[in-house]
Amino acid sequence: MQKGMLFVVSGPSGTGKGTVCKRVKKELEISISVSMTTRKPRAGEIEGESYYFVTHDEFRNALKRNGFLEYAQVYGNYYGTPKAKVLEKLNAGMDVLLEIDIQGALNVKKAFPDSILIFLLPPSLEELEKRIVARGTETEEAIRLRLGESLRELSYVYQYDYCIINDELQDAVDAVASVIRAEHARVRKGIRELIQSYEKSIKGGFLL
Amino acid sequence: MQKGMLFVVSGPSGTGKGTVCKRVKKELEISISVSMTTRKPRAGEIEGESYYFVTHDEFRNALKRNGFLEYAQVYGNYYGTPKAKVLEKLNAGMDVLLEIDIQGALNVKKAFPDSILIFLLPPSLEELEKRIVARGTETEEAIRLRLGESLRELSYVYQYDYCIINDELQDAVDAVASVIRAEHARVRKGIRELIQSYEKSIKGGFLL
Repeated sequence: MQKGMLFVVSGPSGTGKGTVCKRVKKELEISISVSMTTRKPRAGEIEGESYYFVTHDEFRNALKRNGFLEYAQVYGNYYGTPKAKVLEKLNAGMDVLLEIDIQGALNVKKAFPDSILIFLLPPSLEELEKRIVARGTETEEAIRLRLGESLRELSYVYQYDYCIINDELQDAVDAVASVIRAEHARVRKGIRELIQSYEKSIKGGFLL
Repeated sequence: MQKGMLFVVSGPSGTGKGTVCKRVKKELEISISVSMTTRKPRAGEIEGESYYFVTHDEFRNALKRNGFLEYAQVYGNYYGTPKAKVLEKLNAGMDVLLEIDIQGALNVKKAFPDSILIFLLPPSLEELEKRIVARGTETEEAIRLRLGESLRELSYVYQYDYCIINDELQDAVDAVASVIRAEHARVRKGIRELIQSYEKSIKGGFLL
């Protein structure tokens, strides 16, 4: 059975990763991995859907059991992708979409060189600032910290496979969906099986 | 100005390249290059739209003037892609789609390493045979010749970037369109300009 493919959407804080991924899931057959975090829930976030919210102790225990595909510390909080569920879905032939930060994405690429990294960019830094401010959950200092970090993170785009600007949400969603569809058409080892099936039908003798 | 991208759809005779490309053009902003050929028009083919139909002498003259991006001889007829129009469109920032045979596609890739090659496959060899027979323009011997050639050509799929099975027409069209959209999101040199524009806005001093 053909395994599923692993896609990673990441990018600087405030580029709209979460919204884009939710919409992609509505349009395609793909499973979104829910991360575990020690960060406090923001208003409207749902346990087991937005994140698995855990204590530092719980996180450390999972880490000791080697239970993460990747994990990273961001602004003092830990974020990790539970490994077992992702592998289970990939093995069952299901694509999986990870919405994680840049450190995490680069770690996934190291562990899974076949994974596809998509970098999501804001249309401009002014817009990024607006979005982080509009979220209303950050202090002025935290906003400054995030913007500085976002700028530093832009240089990682060269280690990504794709870069999509999230200006109009639907355009960004279409672009991510196109990447997922296109990657399934990439010439890879899987093609070999198809061609062998042609060759078998030749040897069956019905043609030549 | 960002140049357009060059996409090539090819594949064995009878895989439905022409129909797929026409539909892609309806869905995306892309220009389809019209080839020049010494082959006789089939019923329903239109001069200047299906092909530019020319004599062997006219073709040789264009060839002497170095007027082709690629040309190839297929089943005793010549086919060529007029160079000037394609370059003009690419330089104007327009994507161009070539619907050409496999020899031609590989020659284009040599001349334009950035071009994207898409291999179109029939769902099975039985189906390919049906389609060539249904076309009704070929003798039994010509059909046998084409099928043998198609099989030989399958091995070239490994030199292509993408491979799409034309089973349901709309699915194949969606897949080609997704490849075109996704390739625009690939991390390439163009990204550098975007990041420089961010850096400029920082130096402008409004942010940090």
